[in-house]
Amino acid sequence: METIAEKHVNLYKESQRDKGRLLISCPDKKGIVAAVSDVLFKQGANILESNQYSTDSNGGTFFMRIEFECPNLVDNEKKLKEEFLSIANKFKMKWDIIFNYHIKKTAIFVSKELHCLRELLWEWQSGDLMTEIPIVISNHMAAKELVESLHIPFYYIPVSKETKEDAELRQKELLDKHQIDLIVLARYMQILSPSFVEMYENKIINIHHSFLPAFMGARPYERAFARGVKLIGATSHYVTDDLDEGPIIEQDIMRVNHQDNIQQLKKIGQSIERNVLSKAVKWHLQDRIIVQGNKTIVF
Amino acid sequence: METIAEKHVNLYKESQRDKGRLLISCPDKKGIVAAVSDVLFKQGANILESNQYSTDSNGGTFFMRIEFECPNLVDNEKKLKEEFLSIANKFKMKWDIIFNYHIKKTAIFVSKELHCLRELLWEWQSGDLMTEIPIVISNHMAAKELVESLHIPFYYIPVSKETKEDAELRQKELLDKHQIDLIVLARYMQILSPSFVEMYENKIINIHHSFLPAFMGARPYERAFARGVKLIGATSHYVTDDLDEGPIIEQDIMRVNHQDNIQQLKKIGQSIERNVLSKAVKWHLQDRIIVQGNKTIVF
Amino acid sequence: METIAEKHVNLYKESQRDKGRLLISCPDKKGIVAAVSDVLFKQGANILESNQYSTDSNGGTFFMRIEFECPNLVDNEKKLKEEFLSIANKFKMKWDIIFNYHIKKTAIFVSKELHCLRELLWEWQSGDLMTEIPIVISNHMAAKELVESLHIPFYYIPVSKETKEDAELRQKELLDKHQIDLIVLARYMQILSPSFVEMYENKIINIHHSFLPAFMGARPYERAFARGVKLIGATSHYVTDDLDEGPIIEQDIMRVNHQDNIQQLKKIGQSIERNVLSKAVKWHLQDRIIVQGNKTIVF
Amino acid sequence: METIAEKHVNLYKESQRDKGRLLISCPDKKGIVAAVSDVLFKQGANILESNQYSTDSNGGTFFMRIEFECPNLVDNEKKLKEEFLSIANKFKMKWDIIFNYHIKKTAIFVSKELHCLRELLWEWQSGDLMTEIPIVISNHMAAKELVESLHIPFYYIPVSKETKEDAELRQKELLDKHQIDLIVLARYMQILSPSFVEMYENKIINIHHSFLPAFMGARPYERAFARGVKLIGATSHYVTDDLDEGPIIEQDIMRVNHQDNIQQLKKIGQSIERNVLSKAVKWHLQDRIIVQGNKTIVF
Repeated sequence: METIAEKHVNLYKESQRDKGRLLISCPDKKGIVAAVSDVLFKQGANILESNQYSTDSNGGTFFMRIEFECPNLVDNEKKLKEEFLSIANKFKMKWDIIFNYHIKKTAIFVSKELHCLRELLWEWQSGDLMTEIPIVISNHMAAKELVESLHIPFYYIPVSKETKEDAELRQKELLDKHQIDLIVLARYMQILSPSFVEMYENKIINIHHSFLPAFMGARPYERAFARGVKLIGATSHYVTDDLDEGPIIEQDIMRVNHQDNIQQLKKIGQSIERNVLSKAVKWHLQDRIIVQGNKTIVF
Repeated sequence: METIAEKHVNLYKESQRDKGRLLISCPDKKGIVAAVSDVLFKQGANILESNQYSTDSNGGTFFMRIEFECPNLVDNEKKLKEEFLSIANKFKMKWDIIFNYHIKKTAIFVSKELHCLRELLWEWQSGDLMTEIPIVISNHMAAKELVESLHIPFYYIPVSKETKEDAELRQKELLDKHQIDLIVLARYMQILSPSFVEMYENKIINIHHSFLPAFMGARPYERAFARGVKLIGATSHYVTDDLDEGPIIEQDIMRVNHQDNIQQLKKIGQSIERNVLSKAVKWHLQDRIIVQGNKTIVF
Repeated sequence: METIAEKHVNLYKESQRDKGRLLISCPDKKGIVAAVSDVLFKQGANILESNQYSTDSNGGTFFMRIEFECPNLVDNEKKLKEEFLSIANKFKMKWDIIFNYHIKKTAIFVSKELHCLRELLWEWQSGDLMTEIPIVISNHMAAKELVESLHIPFYYIPVSKETKEDAELRQKELLDKHQIDLIVLARYMQILSPSFVEMYENKIINIHHSFLPAFMGARPYERAFARGVKLIGATSHYVTDDLDEGPIIEQDIMRVNHQDNIQQLKKIGQSIERNVLSKAVKWHLQDRIIVQGNKTIVF
Repeated sequence: METIAEKHVNLYKESQRDKGRLLISCPDKKGIVAAVSDVLFKQGANILESNQYSTDSNGGTFFMRIEFECPNLVDNEKKLKEEFLSIANKFKMKWDIIFNYHIKKTAIFVSKELHCLRELLWEWQSGDLMTEIPIVISNHMAAKELVESLHIPFYYIPVSKETKEDAELRQKELLDKHQIDLIVLARYMQILSPSFVEMYENKIINIHHSFLPAFMGARPYERAFARGVKLIGATSHYVTDDLDEGPIIEQDIMRVNHQDNIQQLKKIGQSIERNVLSKAVKWHLQDRIIVQGNKTIVF
């Protein structure tokens, strides 16, 4: 039987058959927009949404995201890409055309705190997170009941210093088998090894429970309490080898005061975390994020 | 001698000689972006910033704002406009090309409360409000000292039921004489007559001291207090004949609680008002606002 | 078997055996605090938290909420209340002493949109909403699965013009049977009859999907869209006979822009609604809200 | 002639003749509130506002701030303090009674950026910052015209590595001569020497242009830009020997995005800075801040 989440996905796919997204980055130069929009026009495409940004109109880098509609897009896929190649070469573009009906596949990693996982699953069930979730992986059993109640396979892979390498191998196998496009660390309290991170460049999103770069590393709420800050925050970012230093996607904060103890900071923080992580995941799934060095452009 | 504000204006004008803005609205249709960017490209223009929005890609209205740079723009003004005419006609565009070095002229109207006026003058002196302010008009004397200390001519035009018509005539004369492009009602507590408003369609910005449509009309803070709201706000909008019902440009709020009396609501409100009004004026001066019916598109 | 929510409740009750709350309102006068704190001191109570507010120190009304700890509170309940009576009479107080281990019983009413219900149940399961939820009542079947999966009895009571009276009778029966202290309308899209509302004065909390008093009544998001507001909001309030005019408990807003269509306003609004409602319910359960006329004091 | 600011101060002093503030910190223990309120009651005082907080009701520290009204307070000053001594000793209190008509005297230090100074002077002129400002001290001439236009003496004291000691001596002389109670560093870009700071413990308020502890030290906007944060902020704090590590009074943030360059971050930051600094100064002047270790309690 089709679950509610599957129903949402299928309806969405149907509605998006003729829709696509074009992502471009290249050295800024006159005529890029004219050339790109000309190709789309000649293919009969209608531009639905378009965003662009240049680090410097004089020798900087130009970024663009276009959401378009094109009759018979599925059939014209190859042709559209061919047409695009000529201008892509001319302008030295890094580019990608994404077809909306190819829904991305997401794996969620989680440990014992479930609030971020719950938010993601909820949004997914409501059709607001347009993705398939073939697996949830955890080093604890806490999430098992919740995950399986939604008919998602749950994999318990405990991790210790000694078993870490094996654990990552098993994780990798599962990710490969399910052709995962995006890994979300929804309060997964294990550090991934550099070789693992390398395989999924700009494809692992983490939530850190502070407004980075403040309180990098462990126990940010405890340290926020000790420092007596008047705001606490959370940060979603792509994972790189440098712990908590990857490109920031989204951040938010809430006001606290002297009366809030560490326990209360954590409670307040949880609602920021769920919000900030689910925004980042949504934007990634909609191909709204371009990573430029250690920063993100969010269109 | 050149004042600080004049210095800012002159520096800005010099830096903007080759920059312009293109505003378009027309029925949505395939090929608009391609056609527009092609004209700009052929004139040697570089697109610095571009925003677009369509109410409905299927038969809706398309809006676009482009900020561009074009060598010898001042000399090419006529040619650029001519080139543009052909596609403008083809797509049935309402359009405008603005040359940044033509600084807009703003008149400020104020009554007795000076916080909004002060914010505007401050931003103007800091070079953040790129406009000339040839006149400030008031129905009270409260602002005279402040205004004249900045070498801006201050005109005291008292208004009563009987003198309103005459007063507006005098105002109109001053506005004409100084070729005013924008009127800002910075807590001007007089209602302008319909015929006056009509002459300056989408050229009068007002600040209303509530989050409209809540508390339209008089004494919004008193009514907010009586209702026991937990947020108070302010709204900047273009002035139309329907009091407090013109197109909203910007709104913001702040949190209040049961301890705040009316006097405190007003104090808190003042900081929202100055912020919200100065944002709206800035956006108008940068040609970022397009009025569509009773709404605004802010690019 | 004990559910997670029951476990939280039981742990909480155990930890609160000696804790209580004192709520007072009376004509403001010198010596109230001295008298109240003296009674508590003589009973061996320690004040954990204390808040007070006076509408006017000169002839206004004085409000106070004290959270205290007192050894053997359960046994001393009667004695404490007796001691308090003498000063209560002297100062003409309306007062209440609440014993924290008497957990309040909450009934949730819901229709088809489940986001507010889901948030409340989630907070309840996490131990952040300290209440028992003996029943959920709905005029639709949409919530049945979710509610029953948490082992809460779900009552389907459809309502039409003709059956409204009967439906309210059945609702009343259920509320009586389960000794309900608080009714939460978590997007319950039926208007309760005046006689029903009267029975639960200041005991029904509703969430309205606009920042009241803007957009009272039906279809607020549609009207917000039509008006072109730049902020949308939600308001939790006690229900009175005047639709959407009861005492406001909490409000919040989020920023929207011209690109957001009605569907998107609703999605954004949902996250405000769930947040604003769950705050109001939490404060009510903690006896932090005092209703004064048509306003609330939230300590 | 009386300036507007003086008029505000004098009106305020007159209205506050019978009002005072009581600040207490001591080991938490039963009966404190009863004892304190009893003393006030016996002196005929009415409690206007009262706030308290305990780090731990079991052996922690108790803090209290009471705003009270007492007939003939000026005449009863001595007696009230005597009465208070007995309970102060009993409970081992650190305490202070402040008489509102003793207006605090503030010195503002500023360098070249004037936005914070301007905000403070504006609030002061509007009667919202209840203080006297006998002097403004700067290591640059930029603020001279603004300061003197408000009839405040401006002292230009340039500072270099070599002259720092002398400069601080001169500053100290001026502060002594004018009996300064509070020093506000309104973007004063010099580090004060430890011996100077020591003399004014919890009496120097600084504004740092980042949300501490992120971006401590120099050039925070440049570093925020490089890190690609999505929020920028400002922090007001008491100055201690550890640069940017003193007790935080207030913080706030604003949202930024990839389009904002360093210059724009600074502009956005300025409006946060002015707001955050003026709040901290206001709270200090109202004796709302108690420093506890490296944190503040703001009542």
